[in-house]
Amino acid sequence: MKMKHKGILIVVSGFSGAGKGTLMKQLVHTYDNYALSVSMTTRAPRPGEEEGKEHFFVSKDVFEDNIQQDGLIEYAQYCDNYYGTPREYVERQLEKGKDVILEIEIQGALKVKEKFPTALLMFVMPPNATELKKRLEGRGTESKEVIAKRLRRASEEAEGIEKYDFIVINDKLEECVRQMHSLIQAAHFTPDRNGEMIDNMRKELEELN
Amino acid sequence: MKMKHKGILIVVSGFSGAGKGTLMKQLVHTYDNYALSVSMTTRAPRPGEEEGKEHFFVSKDVFEDNIQQDGLIEYAQYCDNYYGTPREYVERQLEKGKDVILEIEIQGALKVKEKFPTALLMFVMPPNATELKKRLEGRGTESKEVIAKRLRRASEEAEGIEKYDFIVINDKLEECVRQMHSLIQAAHFTPDRNGEMIDNMRKELEELN
Repeated sequence: MKMKHKGILIVVSGFSGAGKGTLMKQLVHTYDNYALSVSMTTRAPRPGEEEGKEHFFVSKDVFEDNIQQDGLIEYAQYCDNYYGTPREYVERQLEKGKDVILEIEIQGALKVKEKFPTALLMFVMPPNATELKKRLEGRGTESKEVIAKRLRRASEEAEGIEKYDFIVINDKLEECVRQMHSLIQAAHFTPDRNGEMIDNMRKELEELN
Repeated sequence: MKMKHKGILIVVSGFSGAGKGTLMKQLVHTYDNYALSVSMTTRAPRPGEEEGKEHFFVSKDVFEDNIQQDGLIEYAQYCDNYYGTPREYVERQLEKGKDVILEIEIQGALKVKEKFPTALLMFVMPPNATELKKRLEGRGTESKEVIAKRLRRASEEAEGIEKYDFIVINDKLEECVRQMHSLIQAAHFTPDRNGEMIDNMRKELEELN
């Protein structure tokens, strides 16, 4: 009747510029129990991007084979390129008891939740409106169109917040990483993630009766 | 757009003998932010019980007046006596930002959840079957009937575990108190408990658009 710490699948979404990437890298670096999922894409690597680090870079044919063979947990198309989450790595890490982290926008997050009902959905936000505006405007070098596009995108993303399990405010990085870790730890103690333990306890109670 | 720490209503249930009472007292003693709700009852005080500490002891007439005036969040009858949760104390403490803890069995817990949809439901369990049996059997001085009754009760209580938000394993007291505190802290970061902040953020995004 022990709490069995099977891995949880964690989906991280949030406003662009909320610092999701840095946050996740720091989380994996600080604590032992995490594995970062690397997505597969058909887009070309940018200078400095490494195969298997930022993404797995594959051809359109290979990607579509993966779709056909149910090798992806979710996938989407942006600007004529495919992006998806390879299933095998995720499932192997969960089996090992690792908590696996994916960074996906809301549509993908909801698809993951359908396939993995115990997935934990976290939404990262900047601490306040001024900061949000600053981050959306970038370093002041962005065109009005780019800023407008980011604002529209942020509004769309904000629509879905209620679908998430937890909100994470990214103010100070170290604090936010600790906070995120303790929310994930808490998620291990929900009944739906401890079905086996509850079943065992009921069986034992019946035997005593 | 700051996380507003409004109080959460926390309902604690669990097997009798799981140590709920001690756990809650220790929690309130260890951390600042908690208030323990004291229930109202029509049963007579037992030797050593103090008015307003274990319970508020009232007459049947006073209790029924409270029911009529919607002065109780929930109430139930056991063995010809009423037990209930006075509303005023709970609401005043929540307004102050305190997290208010109630100890109620499952039927009451579900009634509370109906009236306070953001209430947090926690289920306390002993660490394993041997310990459970030991606690149900008491100090070896209990009659077979009493033990059988406790076992039936525990089985009934176990039926409802899936309705709870978190499971708390009471093995070592100090550790369990810390655990319970961090689960409650986590609960402050769900979207349904931060509606105001999310609304503000959406308004600010619209103004930027």
